[in-house]
Amino acid sequence: MPKIARQWLCDILETVYQRRTVTRSEVARATGLNTASVSLGLQYLLKRGTIVKVGELDSIGGRRAEVLKLNAEAAYFVAVDLEGSRIRFALTNCVGDIRYRWEEDLEFGQTLKVERIVEGIRMALHGARETDRSRVLAIGISHPGIVDEKRRITAFNVGWRKFPLLTELAQAFDLPIFMEHGHRTSILAERWLGRAQGYDSCIYMMIKQGVGVGIFSNGHEVAGRNEMSGEIGHVTIDPSATDQCNCGKQGCLEAIISSPNIVRQYYERKGRKIRSVVDAQVGEVFARAREGDEVANEVLDRVGRYLGLGLSVLVNLFSPEIIILGGDVLRGADVLLPRAERELRRSAIPDFCEGLKLTTSSLGMDIGLKGAASLAFRNALRDQLLLEKLTDPQSTYA
Amino acid sequence: MPKIARQWLCDILETVYQRRTVTRSEVARATGLNTASVSLGLQYLLKRGTIVKVGELDSIGGRRAEVLKLNAEAAYFVAVDLEGSRIRFALTNCVGDIRYRWEEDLEFGQTLKVERIVEGIRMALHGARETDRSRVLAIGISHPGIVDEKRRITAFNVGWRKFPLLTELAQAFDLPIFMEHGHRTSILAERWLGRAQGYDSCIYMMIKQGVGVGIFSNGHEVAGRNEMSGEIGHVTIDPSATDQCNCGKQGCLEAIISSPNIVRQYYERKGRKIRSVVDAQVGEVFARAREGDEVANEVLDRVGRYLGLGLSVLVNLFSPEIIILGGDVLRGADVLLPRAERELRRSAIPDFCEGLKLTTSSLGMDIGLKGAASLAFRNALRDQLLLEKLTDPQSTYA
Repeated sequence: MPKIARQWLCDILETVYQRRTVTRSEVARATGLNTASVSLGLQYLLKRGTIVKVGELDSIGGRRAEVLKLNAEAAYFVAVDLEGSRIRFALTNCVGDIRYRWEEDLEFGQTLKVERIVEGIRMALHGARETDRSRVLAIGISHPGIVDEKRRITAFNVGWRKFPLLTELAQAFDLPIFMEHGHRTSILAERWLGRAQGYDSCIYMMIKQGVGVGIFSNGHEVAGRNEMSGEIGHVTIDPSATDQCNCGKQGCLEAIISSPNIVRQYYERKGRKIRSVVDAQVGEVFARAREGDEVANEVLDRVGRYLGLGLSVLVNLFSPEIIILGGDVLRGADVLLPRAERELRRSAIPDFCEGLKLTTSSLGMDIGLKGAASLAFRNALRDQLLLEKLTDPQSTYA
Repeated sequence: MPKIARQWLCDILETVYQRRTVTRSEVARATGLNTASVSLGLQYLLKRGTIVKVGELDSIGGRRAEVLKLNAEAAYFVAVDLEGSRIRFALTNCVGDIRYRWEEDLEFGQTLKVERIVEGIRMALHGARETDRSRVLAIGISHPGIVDEKRRITAFNVGWRKFPLLTELAQAFDLPIFMEHGHRTSILAERWLGRAQGYDSCIYMMIKQGVGVGIFSNGHEVAGRNEMSGEIGHVTIDPSATDQCNCGKQGCLEAIISSPNIVRQYYERKGRKIRSVVDAQVGEVFARAREGDEVANEVLDRVGRYLGLGLSVLVNLFSPEIIILGGDVLRGADVLLPRAERELRRSAIPDFCEGLKLTTSSLGMDIGLKGAASLAFRNALRDQLLLEKLTDPQSTYA
């Protein structure tokens, strides 16, 4: 493949991935390539089975437009989600559909050993038929915590302090491994497979044990130095608040709106203590609020207000078209979101709120896996060898 | 010019602009073009006088490397800065040096009529010699306020409500007009001419009557919907604060740290009232703090703390390499910045603070003009006709 053609193929495949089904002229519009180049690229991919024809559009005169889509089984990926109280492993096809999965609960605060991750990846690989195993192109990982310039991870929920995950895993597998923070893989999944499709300025906010955001601004990812950014959870949302954060500070957004902290506030007001965050059943607080429990509603008033303030920070700084909420908040969207939206509209610049969409993720608890799969696919397109594997019948359809 | 060559020229010229002086191999490294393409492009530009040779590097064997730079007088721009209590107009050369300037004070709260801007631009154009006037390529504008989807400006300091500035000016001038918010032109000026040179993740924060930021993340501008973003000034920095903001809310960062509000807090604590913000002499508060005035120091403690909190929001969300402060704060950097930095390091994620540079702008009060000139140059490169004018001896050296 000449170099220029490789970039074309990459652009075309990204478009087909995002839109699910496309016509030639749609690809031309989306990529900015001329129709001759698009035709050439699509023919190349059709011949090799990377994309397939699914039908034709009716047309008033002239040729009927072919409708094409990615051959979902043209390649597989291993997706790993290490963010949260349960670690997840999956074998996914080319477009992020989960073909096989393996999950394990994490004991909070205990160190997650690399052997368990290696074992989980092996389990996911076992999900592939013998004949398909050569079509597994890469491993994608959604990870928690903070990464340093040497790509070592510090994450308290898995007990890591500057842990060289990539280096360790590279010793166990021959496959290329790509990793990014769960916030960032999540917004990728939302843009490619979820509700942020077609939005160039979009934000995904995750609320689980931690709180963070993944951001695209005008089509570009906001990645930050060392590819770290989006730590809205540790923004001091109220300097007067005494809520104690895991990070050592007080008044962090996360110390008020994360799911264990919602539960904490509920039990504190009830005059009860909880033994540990493992006891945290945020769904119960939401349920009690729905039943009219006064204390639960007081807590959600406060949480909703601070969530709205946090959202207003994002709106004022980025002016996005859409914000998508995910994580545990999904279970309480009906009771929490109206409260948050009220504060958002009070605190954000009115012009920036006009037409802004605030919604919840449709990808559910699989978003970390979907994000890891999207990351693996995106990075495979950018890797000469992997792109060749994806588009070469000799190596991918042996 | 064929299309591909145009993109090469554009990339080469942007590199030469940013680096001031370059060698052929530096251009190749920065643009990613192969040396043959770079040589071709540089030859083309040298022949046309758009770039000039300024010397040769000593070399151990082999050919001595030519040192090249942009011909600063290859083109001129009109730069307009409408942000602040004084409107500024300038004729600049190709690299943002101000050749002629025209300034006027604004009466606060009075509507700025388009006729005054037209007149100011005419004055700037008069600064060009008759023979040079054909080499004025475009008008660049740094504007205040908020822009809607029709590019109409709402800005209270100039009394505009959905004012169609571009449309109005287009009727008065044949030149192409480019406009962007002052925050965004400022970070462009810092990246091209100031202290953010070479930093892909950088933020410029302006503190004057208003407070806002311009942001580059990993080499991409954070532009936002309708090209509006960076409104850190209207982030609710403390929900308990009763400081009243111009926007109608309380507790906005701007309501505490903008220069009129620094003065307000000083006089309030002194038990005095000020008639209007025109009386605001923030430099005096800084001076009194230096002399040990207790009230002034109390105010700066508070302002420094909230400035630090605001900076920590930016650091946690973007993890930039450098933050540059500009505007009135320049006059009090010695008394204000140490206080802000203390709070920043307390409130931001420690890993994100490691190696982070916090500094003041070296471009002084001209940053709005420099930004407008940088904007005009950048957009001229992206415009086929203007790029041809910049590189065509027939039209630019008539």
